Amino acid sequence: MKFIERNIQSDLACEARELYPSVKGVTQEQEELGEITITRIAITTPEASKKLGKDQGNYITLEAPSLLLRPLDLFKNMTLAVKEELKKLIGNISEDAVVLVTGLGNREITPDSLGPSVTDKLLVTRHIMQYMPEAVEHKLRSLCAISPGVLGVTGIETVEIIRGAVSHVKPDILIAVDSLAARRSERISTTVQISDTGISPGSGVGNTRSGISSNELGCRVIAIGVPLVVYAATVVQDVIEMMADETGLHNDEKKLQDLAEKVITENMGPMIMTPKDIDVMVNDMSGIVADAINMTVHDAHYDEVRALIS
Amino acid sequence: MKFIERNIQSDLACEARELYPSVKGVTQEQEELGEITITRIAITTPEASKKLGKDQGNYITLEAPSLLLRPLDLFKNMTLAVKEELKKLIGNISEDAVVLVTGLGNREITPDSLGPSVTDKLLVTRHIMQYMPEAVEHKLRSLCAISPGVLGVTGIETVEIIRGAVSHVKPDILIAVDSLAARRSERISTTVQISDTGISPGSGVGNTRSGISSNELGCRVIAIGVPLVVYAATVVQDVIEMMADETGLHNDEKKLQDLAEKVITENMGPMIMTPKDIDVMVNDMSGIVADAINMTVHDAHYDEVRALIS
Amino acid sequence: MKFIERNIQSDLACEARELYPSVKGVTQEQEELGEITITRIAITTPEASKKLGKDQGNYITLEAPSLLLRPLDLFKNMTLAVKEELKKLIGNISEDAVVLVTGLGNREITPDSLGPSVTDKLLVTRHIMQYMPEAVEHKLRSLCAISPGVLGVTGIETVEIIRGAVSHVKPDILIAVDSLAARRSERISTTVQISDTGISPGSGVGNTRSGISSNELGCRVIAIGVPLVVYAATVVQDVIEMMADETGLHNDEKKLQDLAEKVITENMGPMIMTPKDIDVMVNDMSGIVADAINMTVHDAHYDEVRALIS
Amino acid sequence: MKFIERNIQSDLACEARELYPSVKGVTQEQEELGEITITRIAITTPEASKKLGKDQGNYITLEAPSLLLRPLDLFKNMTLAVKEELKKLIGNISEDAVVLVTGLGNREITPDSLGPSVTDKLLVTRHIMQYMPEAVEHKLRSLCAISPGVLGVTGIETVEIIRGAVSHVKPDILIAVDSLAARRSERISTTVQISDTGISPGSGVGNTRSGISSNELGCRVIAIGVPLVVYAATVVQDVIEMMADETGLHNDEKKLQDLAEKVITENMGPMIMTPKDIDVMVNDMSGIVADAINMTVHDAHYDEVRALIS
Repeated sequence: MKFIERNIQSDLACEARELYPSVKGVTQEQEELGEITITRIAITTPEASKKLGKDQGNYITLEAPSLLLRPLDLFKNMTLAVKEELKKLIGNISEDAVVLVTGLGNREITPDSLGPSVTDKLLVTRHIMQYMPEAVEHKLRSLCAISPGVLGVTGIETVEIIRGAVSHVKPDILIAVDSLAARRSERISTTVQISDTGISPGSGVGNTRSGISSNELGCRVIAIGVPLVVYAATVVQDVIEMMADETGLHNDEKKLQDLAEKVITENMGPMIMTPKDIDVMVNDMSGIVADAINMTVHDAHYDEVRALIS
Repeated sequence: MKFIERNIQSDLACEARELYPSVKGVTQEQEELGEITITRIAITTPEASKKLGKDQGNYITLEAPSLLLRPLDLFKNMTLAVKEELKKLIGNISEDAVVLVTGLGNREITPDSLGPSVTDKLLVTRHIMQYMPEAVEHKLRSLCAISPGVLGVTGIETVEIIRGAVSHVKPDILIAVDSLAARRSERISTTVQISDTGISPGSGVGNTRSGISSNELGCRVIAIGVPLVVYAATVVQDVIEMMADETGLHNDEKKLQDLAEKVITENMGPMIMTPKDIDVMVNDMSGIVADAINMTVHDAHYDEVRALIS
Repeated sequence: MKFIERNIQSDLACEARELYPSVKGVTQEQEELGEITITRIAITTPEASKKLGKDQGNYITLEAPSLLLRPLDLFKNMTLAVKEELKKLIGNISEDAVVLVTGLGNREITPDSLGPSVTDKLLVTRHIMQYMPEAVEHKLRSLCAISPGVLGVTGIETVEIIRGAVSHVKPDILIAVDSLAARRSERISTTVQISDTGISPGSGVGNTRSGISSNELGCRVIAIGVPLVVYAATVVQDVIEMMADETGLHNDEKKLQDLAEKVITENMGPMIMTPKDIDVMVNDMSGIVADAINMTVHDAHYDEVRALIS
Repeated sequence: MKFIERNIQSDLACEARELYPSVKGVTQEQEELGEITITRIAITTPEASKKLGKDQGNYITLEAPSLLLRPLDLFKNMTLAVKEELKKLIGNISEDAVVLVTGLGNREITPDSLGPSVTDKLLVTRHIMQYMPEAVEHKLRSLCAISPGVLGVTGIETVEIIRGAVSHVKPDILIAVDSLAARRSERISTTVQISDTGISPGSGVGNTRSGISSNELGCRVIAIGVPLVVYAATVVQDVIEMMADETGLHNDEKKLQDLAEKVITENMGPMIMTPKDIDVMVNDMSGIVADAINMTVHDAHYDEVRALIS
């Protein structure tokens, strides 16, 4: 399997795990919650981290294929499940904690706009808590949010803009939200991944973010992502694999690799694959993620945060 | 080649022609204009129309691969070339002609937003010519524009909204602008196709427009499109073809077709492939198309129409 | 009071009534519903219609000043109240009725964007009911929606684009949603007006719509509006009135009128006044209006329609 | 004139100067350049600064009332004039200088969106100069840009996000672009102000920015603004003044002030006045400002920067 080895091309720990099911230093457990499957993976050794191409830490994946049918109760159940996992991962938050959310990605490219779409839907309170706390009826926590834009638009590394905000805001927790790339197209817009590892360099649809991590930024970092694209190169590799299986060509790994590289270089460039109705998907999934963050940070009920979405 | 036959999956007449170079009832000529290659195809018989999956009529394709490097003079040269071809196709327009432009596609999905992006950049004058013609210094023609939205958003067939506008505006010419699907990814954002055939049912990225044609609407229809996506299914087919060539599996067309269908059904759904920096491409190409329309309709110079873009 | 007489400059029937409380041919009743005041005005004679500058028919105004504080339960209560009034005004709708909503105004100008913002939030179903009714779990009604844009952008009278859609869709009811101008700034974003009279020529922020009415379009028309601006000219007139009261200048109506015209002509042009945080207001109020329409048309519960907003 | 004294409510130095024409410590010169009037004001003493409510430094105002008629050659001439003044104010820039532009204001509120609209139109190069300088044909300077959003949306003071970017990018010059408030409505969208003083706390339409200045940020700061609103309170004051002149009430300053405060408190809240076609104005003026910055930073010609706007 050397052929695929060099290129996992997935931001999902569960997909990396699927490719290397027998690697040591990884624990995995699974739970069914109605229509939602929750997979909890812990990468516990540097070797496993290197093999899977993912930082050491915890990754929780929530999958609900029927989200694509847009049933109302599943939106609510998925939001509640994401909130529960987020709460468990974060642990206790003090009443006066400050949470900074950063929405990564490019607002102008639909499948890369999850991050900015989430920050648009947050109940931002930090300025109110700071300047007129009496204006808030019941106790909310201090939440602030930035969408720093992408390198190609600003000319500045995203992590550097975030670093600036972090050094001033001094958040207890930074939540980084981003569009992800999956290997398998059926995970698009049906899956949420939460991790305590931050976001690795080169992850994300835009592919150019430097690492947004606890080490880089000096504060706790939680990452939340939703797969919204598959790399075209992944599709090509998969089709070639399948054809090789069919034809017995699999014994010539070198030739397969050359073929894959030829196709990808000649035709694919830096292409992404995305469903046609990606605009609805981004709206739905950013609603789920934003609601879950609002509920977690502000200890609020589903109906309360829903009432504020507009 | 039965395998590919059933599915041309390209909105470009020149690509359909590439697949069937020897079909009768098609004339083709090519011209080099600096870095721009102009291909003029005429489909002249019903048989050729059926084989190529394109209506009878004229198709002009302008290709400039180096547009992706964004050289300023090529933007200008491409605009001038598109304008010239558009003028030739339209022929004489009387001074008091009315032109209606319809920007097809979904503004919220970046690669499908060419049409609305073009209408945003037009020098719309019909209301001024009608209500205060004295406000316009030199003679402009009457230009109006609508972006009717897509079926999934409005619940109404695009063609029906256009029909309503046409029946009131009674335009001498309807120009329909749309994002197209290409077979070959190198045509994305480097190519403009102009035709006098209107837009066929099922064309376009969104795949759900009814025919926007002279027959349907009772007025002359010119279509302008820019390929901004490749269907994922096309990529899969191409890779399978290539593997089949490599492995000699090509003698079993039935098996190839089954494989292709399996992959496409299982993994691809209605997926599209698009470059990562599609936002810049849509902006650049909609500028070229809008400038060319503004110049053609208003008999204006490049600098004049450029000065109004903002 | 000739001075003000020539210029009511309000799209609200209740404000026209305040200016002429003793005009005959008008009935008015008021109801308190928690924090919401509901005023029902019926203009029953042509004379009253002329005097008040409003078409004959029913106007229901719902006012809740504390909406500006954004309390969650008031959002819900206001939505329910708007839905109730809308239902009463519409009466029975058959199961297979078709409803067309048109969002008037200019999406690019924040206080004029209520209409397009509402259509963005509707649960549009007509295409599903028509092409795959089996895809819908429980019975929904057929709802479609267009945002026709404004004359200055399209070059086409809004009413003509709507007429085209109506002639094809043949809706049982057309609901026209628009930003309104109020006389009193405290009504901005705290008030919803529903009427069965359509929208008069010259109403609305953009000031250039032709009449969208039952007579014009040949189908039932319901109008829903939210005041989001005050005309600058109104403010000037009010200040001059007040100064005249203070100084006893009121006996020289001619001079007052000249002064007002001088100020308005010299400084105000076609200016509008709007609060600074108009973006939040448009989002909140379009949510309330869209939820109420979704609930009315689809016989749905608040939680159901809220779950779909994103 | 104590009545007006407490409230200049203009971001334009030339308007502050008009109110206090005889204050010492201010120099002023005027130049006519075709249809453009250029006013250069220097505030040279702390006393003058306090009286005029503007920081010490240089303010250049370019006014061209006929910009509202949108003549193409005036767009070009205005751009060239803004570029010339900007160049003079900045002086020599070394070839390897880094320029950071920050677009202040709220993208979602049309008259407050000048800053983000300008950054959208800049030729950002810093990432290219840094990572692949060979990709750029002729020598460009390093330009980067951020639109930090507003306090009400992010919960973070704008100046703090900028401080973060400055501390990393270490620009030689920071150019801050913002929508301004004028006293006189005829200055809206006809005027550009350039200054070397930065932006004072409380300036700008949004009213909540902290000072963005050389002192605050430790780098050179140039501010460019375009008036796009008039405060409603200004209009009320002006009308009251005028009425007082007419009626001789002017001898009772106390009463006038009370009247003004009553009206403003009761009806105006934090209201702004803006023309109806503000969307076109923002597009036009952001084009002029962005073109001038692109030309200045990159030593480029008008046609070159125009060709890139889309």
